[in-house]
Amino acid sequence: MPASDVQDEFLFERIEAEDWDAVAAALAAYHPADIARIITRAPSATYRKLFDRVPEDLKPHVLSELEGQAGSDILEALSSSDIVEIVEDMAPDDAADVLGDLPEDRSEEVLHLMDEEDAHELRRLLKYDEDTAGGIMTTNVVALRGAQTVQAAVEAIAYVESDAPFFYAYVVDDRRVLKGYVHLWELLKERGRQRPLDDLVHADVISAAVDMDQEEVARLMARYDLSALPVVDGKRRLVGRITIDDVVDVMEEEASEDILRLAGSDDEELENVSVLRTCRIRLPWLLITLVTGFVTSMILKQFVAHIAEVLVLSFFVPIVLAMGGNTGVQSSTLTVRRIALGDLHTENIWRILLREIGVGAIMGAVCGLAIALWAVLLVRISPGYAPSHSPLEIALIVALALFGAMTFAAMFGAFVPIALNAIGIDPAVASGPFVTTTNDLSALLIYFAFTVVLVRAFG
Amino acid sequence: MPASDVQDEFLFERIEAEDWDAVAAALAAYHPADIARIITRAPSATYRKLFDRVPEDLKPHVLSELEGQAGSDILEALSSSDIVEIVEDMAPDDAADVLGDLPEDRSEEVLHLMDEEDAHELRRLLKYDEDTAGGIMTTNVVALRGAQTVQAAVEAIAYVESDAPFFYAYVVDDRRVLKGYVHLWELLKERGRQRPLDDLVHADVISAAVDMDQEEVARLMARYDLSALPVVDGKRRLVGRITIDDVVDVMEEEASEDILRLAGSDDEELENVSVLRTCRIRLPWLLITLVTGFVTSMILKQFVAHIAEVLVLSFFVPIVLAMGGNTGVQSSTLTVRRIALGDLHTENIWRILLREIGVGAIMGAVCGLAIALWAVLLVRISPGYAPSHSPLEIALIVALALFGAMTFAAMFGAFVPIALNAIGIDPAVASGPFVTTTNDLSALLIYFAFTVVLVRAFG
Repeated sequence: MPASDVQDEFLFERIEAEDWDAVAAALAAYHPADIARIITRAPSATYRKLFDRVPEDLKPHVLSELEGQAGSDILEALSSSDIVEIVEDMAPDDAADVLGDLPEDRSEEVLHLMDEEDAHELRRLLKYDEDTAGGIMTTNVVALRGAQTVQAAVEAIAYVESDAPFFYAYVVDDRRVLKGYVHLWELLKERGRQRPLDDLVHADVISAAVDMDQEEVARLMARYDLSALPVVDGKRRLVGRITIDDVVDVMEEEASEDILRLAGSDDEELENVSVLRTCRIRLPWLLITLVTGFVTSMILKQFVAHIAEVLVLSFFVPIVLAMGGNTGVQSSTLTVRRIALGDLHTENIWRILLREIGVGAIMGAVCGLAIALWAVLLVRISPGYAPSHSPLEIALIVALALFGAMTFAAMFGAFVPIALNAIGIDPAVASGPFVTTTNDLSALLIYFAFTVVLVRAFG
Repeated sequence: MPASDVQDEFLFERIEAEDWDAVAAALAAYHPADIARIITRAPSATYRKLFDRVPEDLKPHVLSELEGQAGSDILEALSSSDIVEIVEDMAPDDAADVLGDLPEDRSEEVLHLMDEEDAHELRRLLKYDEDTAGGIMTTNVVALRGAQTVQAAVEAIAYVESDAPFFYAYVVDDRRVLKGYVHLWELLKERGRQRPLDDLVHADVISAAVDMDQEEVARLMARYDLSALPVVDGKRRLVGRITIDDVVDVMEEEASEDILRLAGSDDEELENVSVLRTCRIRLPWLLITLVTGFVTSMILKQFVAHIAEVLVLSFFVPIVLAMGGNTGVQSSTLTVRRIALGDLHTENIWRILLREIGVGAIMGAVCGLAIALWAVLLVRISPGYAPSHSPLEIALIVALALFGAMTFAAMFGAFVPIALNAIGIDPAVASGPFVTTTNDLSALLIYFAFTVVLVRAFG
């Protein structure tokens, strides 16, 4: 049962009162994922005390769910032999994650204290980059030789020791090369049969290479609706499996990354990092904006010098900047998402760019018309700021400038992520400061160019 | 095997050449998910022709994978009896999705032509809102009575007809009330035993109410690492199950929604909707920005009238707007993501708000210092725009105004999603135009207030 809010409230009350017996009793009724959540939300001074009150058999599960500061604080406070005891009861992939979070000398210490076979396996897992299939897989995988009978296979499976339930068995040849899979359900149906397991094998098995990027793994499993994915090495030998719940975590991570990058921020910030660290993560984008602003102020100065007699035009500068910026953000966000969902291909790049130009032009025309009406009104009520030009001339200048800025921004917003993707950079970075600031500058320059030319022309 | 790019290229070539025999032969080697992908990417005139070339036994799978325009075009082109034939081979949840996409009179027609029992089940599924547990569940669920022996249960399961493999069996009482679950693996281990199934049952089963929001379902399954979730009605009777692959789709959908809402856009746009429809989706945000811009231009007019003698101050308006806007977007994006990940609770609301104010103030101080230096420089190179004030006075005015605008924006950006969430509105809407435009206006007003007061004070 998921924990209810009332239960949570009671527990937090007992934690605050430092009534550790009551806390221990309450925690015993919790799911490990909920215990991890409770610890993360408790004051950091109580992390260790809370973890000590977790029932022994749940500690491995709780520790593998704990992320961020709470996780590292608790690991730091535990002795190496405590860690060994907990880690030995974890699934290998979770154990590798925990060891990967330790400083190298401590993780070496823990590995030395461990059972040699387990340590060997963990060392192998630790070698994989944590963002790859190897980094998220577990080595706990049931591999059956296809030559045996179904009955023998069922008996073998019944004796497998596994810390997590599994739903497929993989079928391999004598050199452990992956040949296919069988559902447990199928084995259950045919459980008494003497026919070879090979007869039941699904040979159309989809697998991941051990160095495949985790985002690619997630996309593969989502696309083919897989609940488990076997992982193979360079010689197609079965080395592990990835289950869908690991991929769900990857998807949450990647979505957070993409969303926060849009704001020039960072995944790390979702954890409780210090205020100063937050500032350090967030300032770079703002400083880029600031420097762009410096350039803007210089351009504005030139602008005012050129069009001092039509000062009314400067009132529209913020509008043009905001419209160009927002149009560009729309285009780049859509394009980045398209790429993330695997929906960009050589054959549709041009279509996407042309589409965005079309969309920008139509929206620019609509907004241009609206701003023209507003400009006529504004000049009528304060003619002093444009003594030498008719309201219609001012309206035409402003409308054309806005139209140009929006069309350019729509095209540019789609172009940048496509270009970044083509040269192998994560297109999501485009959604951050780059597109926004370039659009600010280009919108201003387009506005500036239009107004100066047209003011002269009408002059 | 996932399809390779070379395979894809060949297939698209054959489609273009209208060589339908070669297309049919090539499609036979494809996974249904890849066939759906190919159809979606092909020219819309070929949708129907391609679908006709899909091997008969794959048609149900392909149709349930097809989304957007391609799916509805093909459904429209098929006769009702064709649809019946395809839908009867689908999992009930997929069949309900297809019928839900049909116009009501056509879906009624299809239901009339169907086997009565199937039609009854589909009608029941169609009643659930498609964003709830009921809307994404399948009714295809194995329910065993706990009183029978393990051996009897295994035999019962072996005879279950299921179109999709399953990994758990649910245990119910005589009134179909959910009591727990067993893993198929456990049944396999104990397959010959005469002990009652009740002995093996995990009673700590997590379930979803049939009207639970799909986002909540996804969060529950992600949090507890579940690969399947039983769905129960108001009397805790088992009515269906949700598998993790459905939830992966939900997560992609919701992440897209959140990301695109940040850009004032819309999920629908990721499909190939027309350019005009795209404009209609995207224009509202831009029009809000535009109207805000109108107000900005009025404020600027007043501003210029008040500080005509220090025109240099107007050069900084775009900076202050951009900095306020971006600071606010960072805060609101982080807060929205926190809420989406279930990381906002009554006990930490104040901490989040105070944190954001602190972060905004620190970043405002850093940026204020930078802009002060720039202001001194700018006034020095063009003293004509601030004849009656010293560069230091101008720098102080600009720096204080920027500091105020950024601190306010950081607080406000966090406050809006929290407030929306509290009154039951999806906080993700806050990331769109609302925060941005309010920040533009408030930044300008803060700047205006500071400058007018300080110009007078120094005057």
